[in-house]
Amino acid sequence: MTDWAYLDWNATAPLRPVAREAISAALALTGNPSSVHQEGRAARRVIELARADVATLVGADPRNVVFTSGGTEANALALSPAIEIAGDKAPRERLLVSAIEHPSVLAGGRFARDAIASIGVDPDGIVDLGALERELAKGQRALVSVMLANNETGVLQPIATAAEIVHRHGGLLHVDAVQAAGRIPIDINALGADLLTLSAHKLGGPKGVGALIRRDEAIHLADPLIRGGGQERGSRAGTENVSGIMGFGAAAVAARAGLVAERDHMLTLRERLETGLRVTTPDAVIFGAKAERLPNTTLVALRGLKAETLVIAFDLEGVALSSGAACSSGKVAPSHVLAAMGVEPALARGAIRVSLGQTTTAAEIDLSLGIWRKLVESLSVKEKRGLAA
Amino acid sequence: MTDWAYLDWNATAPLRPVAREAISAALALTGNPSSVHQEGRAARRVIELARADVATLVGADPRNVVFTSGGTEANALALSPAIEIAGDKAPRERLLVSAIEHPSVLAGGRFARDAIASIGVDPDGIVDLGALERELAKGQRALVSVMLANNETGVLQPIATAAEIVHRHGGLLHVDAVQAAGRIPIDINALGADLLTLSAHKLGGPKGVGALIRRDEAIHLADPLIRGGGQERGSRAGTENVSGIMGFGAAAVAARAGLVAERDHMLTLRERLETGLRVTTPDAVIFGAKAERLPNTTLVALRGLKAETLVIAFDLEGVALSSGAACSSGKVAPSHVLAAMGVEPALARGAIRVSLGQTTTAAEIDLSLGIWRKLVESLSVKEKRGLAA
Repeated sequence: MTDWAYLDWNATAPLRPVAREAISAALALTGNPSSVHQEGRAARRVIELARADVATLVGADPRNVVFTSGGTEANALALSPAIEIAGDKAPRERLLVSAIEHPSVLAGGRFARDAIASIGVDPDGIVDLGALERELAKGQRALVSVMLANNETGVLQPIATAAEIVHRHGGLLHVDAVQAAGRIPIDINALGADLLTLSAHKLGGPKGVGALIRRDEAIHLADPLIRGGGQERGSRAGTENVSGIMGFGAAAVAARAGLVAERDHMLTLRERLETGLRVTTPDAVIFGAKAERLPNTTLVALRGLKAETLVIAFDLEGVALSSGAACSSGKVAPSHVLAAMGVEPALARGAIRVSLGQTTTAAEIDLSLGIWRKLVESLSVKEKRGLAA
Repeated sequence: MTDWAYLDWNATAPLRPVAREAISAALALTGNPSSVHQEGRAARRVIELARADVATLVGADPRNVVFTSGGTEANALALSPAIEIAGDKAPRERLLVSAIEHPSVLAGGRFARDAIASIGVDPDGIVDLGALERELAKGQRALVSVMLANNETGVLQPIATAAEIVHRHGGLLHVDAVQAAGRIPIDINALGADLLTLSAHKLGGPKGVGALIRRDEAIHLADPLIRGGGQERGSRAGTENVSGIMGFGAAAVAARAGLVAERDHMLTLRERLETGLRVTTPDAVIFGAKAERLPNTTLVALRGLKAETLVIAFDLEGVALSSGAACSSGKVAPSHVLAAMGVEPALARGAIRVSLGQTTTAAEIDLSLGIWRKLVESLSVKEKRGLAA
């Protein structure tokens, strides 16, 4: 039994103990990694070790890892017309993004508003590759951004196929892998992603650090977002977040080591959750249920219930979960992801996201199911009274 | 006695114990500050407390503090043509920077290269206010960036007077206070700076966090550098570096509490250092010695000695110091600061920076002076032999 549950791992994952230890060790290092003296070199050394660990998580070369302050900055760095490949310096003329991307991708980076086009998704939340190809066939030099796993539904996107299409049309592909990393195996070469975004805190590292990873050294970030220093091989200026980077590296190692066991654990608990939801409320809709999804994410709605009410009610009972994304201060807006999937607003307004992690317990699931049952009954009763009044 | 000295506080300061404790406490908070549940609200709360602490250090309103990933990002965010004041939305046409700014300011942010002009300094390293006024008198809408204290020489700049001139000509003033904060009292209103940059790790906080502070809510950052999320009131998207921010807040409180005592301590030790240098090597030049300087910085050169050689030799003896700035990976270039002061290259190439902090000891100074004496003798002997050969 428990009277507490944290089921909002897609918003942020609890810090892994090894990451905490790594941060603590890094905080004892005084040097600036750019300093040539031994204190500086010691700080430089741990950054390079962490760089290798993060690279290994996604099958990349450490030289191609650019540490940033998080996934949002990595996306902003990636989405520039000045992404060059193999010396081809002509700017990218268009940015194509799937309609279900994170707001930091939808913001479009440094592309002009009218140079950005959105690619739809099907009712399961999977990007429409036919529509992507039609846009690419228009002939402009494109940068394409498609996420590996959606943060709200957990639905996985057909990245390898998308990459083949994008490359056939001379495009470049950026993949926001923030929600996928540490939850499913990732190989940047197998995916064919030219640029890949990671965030430490989604996989058990600290908040405030992320990375943009290049598939190949031939891909050049010609217009860094933050300039005025030679750090990160000129791609990102500023004294490095040494402790954050070291925590990121440690979390990446642990996430990789745990991939299979953690996935099985999360799948078992999610099945327990979704079975419970279906038994209690056969009318509940689990979005993207027919698609391949992350092992840890359930986005569910029941007609007539409001997500804000549910989230607050769960919180009062000690259960942390969310209404879709948590990435904008206090914002309560209908989900652009569900809208893109063609879900009617009345249903979408009730969607709550339950996201699990490697330390989630069956007791947390059962507690949440019990609260769900209670809330559904009480809210249904109120609703009926409201209708009768 | 000691056989070790860290005298490179301007590159980065050792973490203050209170900052370490605050980071540790923050790492135990799981929530995403944007989440509405109690875990999210707990993370939000510590950010807002830290925001108030950082604001207090410089006499600002907490609402006007925008947390960033460091001083470099804060400078990049500040230097945009789209800085608005009191609803005046016309873009800034020019950026005027002093010639001795940090590279992250010299990079010019989002101004076009040909819209940036440099303002010279006098032989003491003080910005030429006459030249600034002449540039402003050309009539274009300017953003001006002048640092509060130079990172290499420690020389303080006449910010309040500069602000008066800038404002009289309809300009806006950004002040990079990264090296000054925590070492001298700062009041953003007394300075008249419209925007002020801080970095946590220069005042005993962690690396990877900083802030851009507005003097007044009427100043609007209309073109955020990192977009796609409502964090930091829309001025800077991305999940906040909660532990880093909490460490920054704790360091700011400690730095403020220690201002007078720490200044006196550093001044006493610097006097011991400079007296020792003058006794051993009367020909040594201490740059900016006639100007008002930070209490902790000495930039010194002796004709015929090379800074790289000295830094490595000191390092081998256990003393960490630097040749000017440490902000670019492995870069060994002549100082643009000394060049702007009119120092001849042969002398500038020998400049080493000794920068102290609140835990520096007299033993560290004496160790360094002993090494200086030894090195000067041995290098002079070698040099004479070289000349004789």
